[in-house]
Amino acid sequence: MSERLDGLKQRLGQLSDIGHAMSLAHWDQQTMMPPQGGEARAESLATLTGISHEMFVDDETGALLEGAAAELNGADPDGDDARLVTLVRRQYDKARRVPTDLAAEMARAASVGQEAWVVARVQSDFQSFIPYLERNFELARHYVECHAGCDDFEAPYDVLLDDYEPQLPTREVATLFAQLKAELVPVIAQIAAAEPVDETPLHAQFLVDRQRALVREVVGLMGFDDTEWRLDDTVHPFATRIGGGDVRITTRWDERFWPTGLYGAMHECGHGLYEAGLPRRLRRSPVGAAESLGMHESQSRLWENMVGRGRAFCTVLAPRIAALAGGELADLDADRLYRAVNRVTPSYIRVESDEATYALHIILRFELEQRLIDGTLAIRDLPEAWNTRFEEYFGIAVDNDADGVLQDVHWSAGLIGYFPTYALGNLIAGQLWERALGDITDLEEQLAAGELGMLREWLGEHVHRHGSKFTTAELLAREVGGPMSVTPFTSYLKAKLGDVYGLDLDG
Amino acid sequence: MSERLDGLKQRLGQLSDIGHAMSLAHWDQQTMMPPQGGEARAESLATLTGISHEMFVDDETGALLEGAAAELNGADPDGDDARLVTLVRRQYDKARRVPTDLAAEMARAASVGQEAWVVARVQSDFQSFIPYLERNFELARHYVECHAGCDDFEAPYDVLLDDYEPQLPTREVATLFAQLKAELVPVIAQIAAAEPVDETPLHAQFLVDRQRALVREVVGLMGFDDTEWRLDDTVHPFATRIGGGDVRITTRWDERFWPTGLYGAMHECGHGLYEAGLPRRLRRSPVGAAESLGMHESQSRLWENMVGRGRAFCTVLAPRIAALAGGELADLDADRLYRAVNRVTPSYIRVESDEATYALHIILRFELEQRLIDGTLAIRDLPEAWNTRFEEYFGIAVDNDADGVLQDVHWSAGLIGYFPTYALGNLIAGQLWERALGDITDLEEQLAAGELGMLREWLGEHVHRHGSKFTTAELLAREVGGPMSVTPFTSYLKAKLGDVYGLDLDG
Repeated sequence: MSERLDGLKQRLGQLSDIGHAMSLAHWDQQTMMPPQGGEARAESLATLTGISHEMFVDDETGALLEGAAAELNGADPDGDDARLVTLVRRQYDKARRVPTDLAAEMARAASVGQEAWVVARVQSDFQSFIPYLERNFELARHYVECHAGCDDFEAPYDVLLDDYEPQLPTREVATLFAQLKAELVPVIAQIAAAEPVDETPLHAQFLVDRQRALVREVVGLMGFDDTEWRLDDTVHPFATRIGGGDVRITTRWDERFWPTGLYGAMHECGHGLYEAGLPRRLRRSPVGAAESLGMHESQSRLWENMVGRGRAFCTVLAPRIAALAGGELADLDADRLYRAVNRVTPSYIRVESDEATYALHIILRFELEQRLIDGTLAIRDLPEAWNTRFEEYFGIAVDNDADGVLQDVHWSAGLIGYFPTYALGNLIAGQLWERALGDITDLEEQLAAGELGMLREWLGEHVHRHGSKFTTAELLAREVGGPMSVTPFTSYLKAKLGDVYGLDLDG
Repeated sequence: MSERLDGLKQRLGQLSDIGHAMSLAHWDQQTMMPPQGGEARAESLATLTGISHEMFVDDETGALLEGAAAELNGADPDGDDARLVTLVRRQYDKARRVPTDLAAEMARAASVGQEAWVVARVQSDFQSFIPYLERNFELARHYVECHAGCDDFEAPYDVLLDDYEPQLPTREVATLFAQLKAELVPVIAQIAAAEPVDETPLHAQFLVDRQRALVREVVGLMGFDDTEWRLDDTVHPFATRIGGGDVRITTRWDERFWPTGLYGAMHECGHGLYEAGLPRRLRRSPVGAAESLGMHESQSRLWENMVGRGRAFCTVLAPRIAALAGGELADLDADRLYRAVNRVTPSYIRVESDEATYALHIILRFELEQRLIDGTLAIRDLPEAWNTRFEEYFGIAVDNDADGVLQDVHWSAGLIGYFPTYALGNLIAGQLWERALGDITDLEEQLAAGELGMLREWLGEHVHRHGSKFTTAELLAREVGGPMSVTPFTSYLKAKLGDVYGLDLDG
């Protein structure tokens, strides 16, 4: 009775197996691969992408989808199988519009571009990077054109965004971002006029090996498990699940700015917990994958910021940092740590920015991406556009491209339409955090005791175990009772920053 | 005019790209993967193997081969293209006889078996390992049966051996091994009756971090290059090329037996130099791959033993070991080192055995494998068969399976018919070494000065650059002027061991 459904699952399982190999190839490229291996890696990824694309868009997949849908007639629409068919049908229809050659070429250009970016960033050399970036945006435009006339998308950018944040129109993102900006700008201004907090603990020397020990302990409290996880060094931190029982996170280290290592690792470990918490029974199935990147980022930001930069957990961190770092940090206490890690100050690098200005980094990229895609901005004019807008938003001038337009790996790796999901993650994290605090009445006490298990389980129950059975909008409706919204995040942030700076930010 | 040939090359290039992903998956499984990742890895490897097999045995490959052969009518039979068609035609005919399901299942069982082996070896628990080993041998028998009635093979074992040592019949291997055994047994007996050499330097403490520094320097002299190579730790050392510009070698370390790290690394670096020296123009082509495993092993054994354990290079190693290890090794001199590393003594572990007894380890496995394949020996009786034969050959009793039948990864990973290539490697190394000493008249002086470049280039010229354009027999005929033979190796060995033990071993 479920012959076609079984056939569909088998095919999707094989596609997941190819995805496994591609995830490993990406992870390896960013952590282990010798520099000269890039060319062959790009070819391999292009071929695997092409094979995977062809296998997925094959008529047989469509026939299996039809057959499975018929077999499931009358089944629970929220059941794993019904959700699988709905989810995959939509992905299939979208993928069918894309020629295999284009999919393979996008993978190749992304892999090659990423190698070029590593070099360009180190040398702050945008000029050498132009052809790679042009190629990626050109291919992205071809990709958008494949979906011309499709009812699913209102704007060209919708096509790209949908790959990372399914079924969320650019228009809605723009509305949320406008609200967010309107809330944040006065907060940033009030803080700029206030007495600055003492940032010196952030820049005190902290030997990398000691930082590693701290990070090992902290991610251990979060749920990192040596039998299923790895932690490695990289240039641009990320988390990935290669397959069931194999979650890999990465971080980078700076002896004179230890938050890079610690908060980077907590962030990626948050992503990793989502991946590790996905349902075992759906391991090789697309429904068993994580939902949107916004939902993913909500997990990383919640652990990094709500937990890691919260007053409660700072009481756990401070004595450990003091003991491991010694020197200037030997007498670090929780209050001083809490203030320092929550300082708000305009800065160049997105991943090191504070929670208040973070969204401005994203909005800048979101705006520029749309112009690069609709053709109103040329790649060669990008640094100037970046720098002008940056100064307008942050009040500081970018003096080299490595700290400006070259800082992020994304565009080099063909990840266009991806950035907004980071700020959406903050919003969702705000919504989940509000709800978790309601559900776990002694959550702050638990965090202050270094007990992170109940929060992890709460997130498992409300987010992880669903995989991608529901869209982000559906999941939020089920779990927090409403659509994506700005207020829970900004309320949380104003309360915390008001505490840190001794200001009333709610006015 | 070369449309079909181009089509063939494109298809083979894609197969090479899939091979790239599989090599990476294997490397990762043995160096990086968290233990719980094994199940998903096995599925992924099975799927990739199946896809690759299907793409290769597809009728279209056959049509392209036919077409390419027609296009090449009259071309130089030793040219890259003509050799490609000959080589691939034979591989295609063999692969066509194997169902895709069997190929995929062999890959899955190999990957799963390898994980089971890691656990079984640590616990010296053969019992738990039986089902995995039975599965691999059962599949190997199915594989042999696929080729029933095929003129290419005389004996069942031929089918397996041919995958590693193309076109060499088991019968010829048995003849060579009988000669080799007849030469070695009296040598081992004479040495056993002689005054033992001082082995204590081998067991002196040598901190692992200091060993790493030594190994980095030595492989650097050999040609290891950070932009194209990696060196990692593993349980069972190996070398692999993931793709062009990406060669990876591994070793393991023992603070109380430093030769494991150093000679393991020199051995794998020898393999790596072969991979790195393959012709760039044939990077994604099967003709650009290494020839037989026997040829491969000749490279590793030549560097490990002829160079690394030779009197000349011991003058380079001794002062470095003395300086880095200090302590008991602080006054190590070249002569003492040379004697110690060339001691002959029966021992349990193949990879740590000396050059004289090494072949006996191989012959034992070669004999047992044939019985396991022809069904005259059952897996459950294997430890007893191993131990009985081991005591007969080596005069010492195996007291636990970890030091006996469980010591090698091969059978767990489905590598059956592979072991003989190790001893063949010694023979070929003997032939190449004899020739290199003739061609490079001051070779010993160069080695004593730590100058390894000319030997590397000689091997590149005579072996590496040919890829697999020629069979091992053809290559030996071209480069050393005769077939595979025992005497150059045994002459070299008797001369060295005679020197070490002060004996006349030629009598």
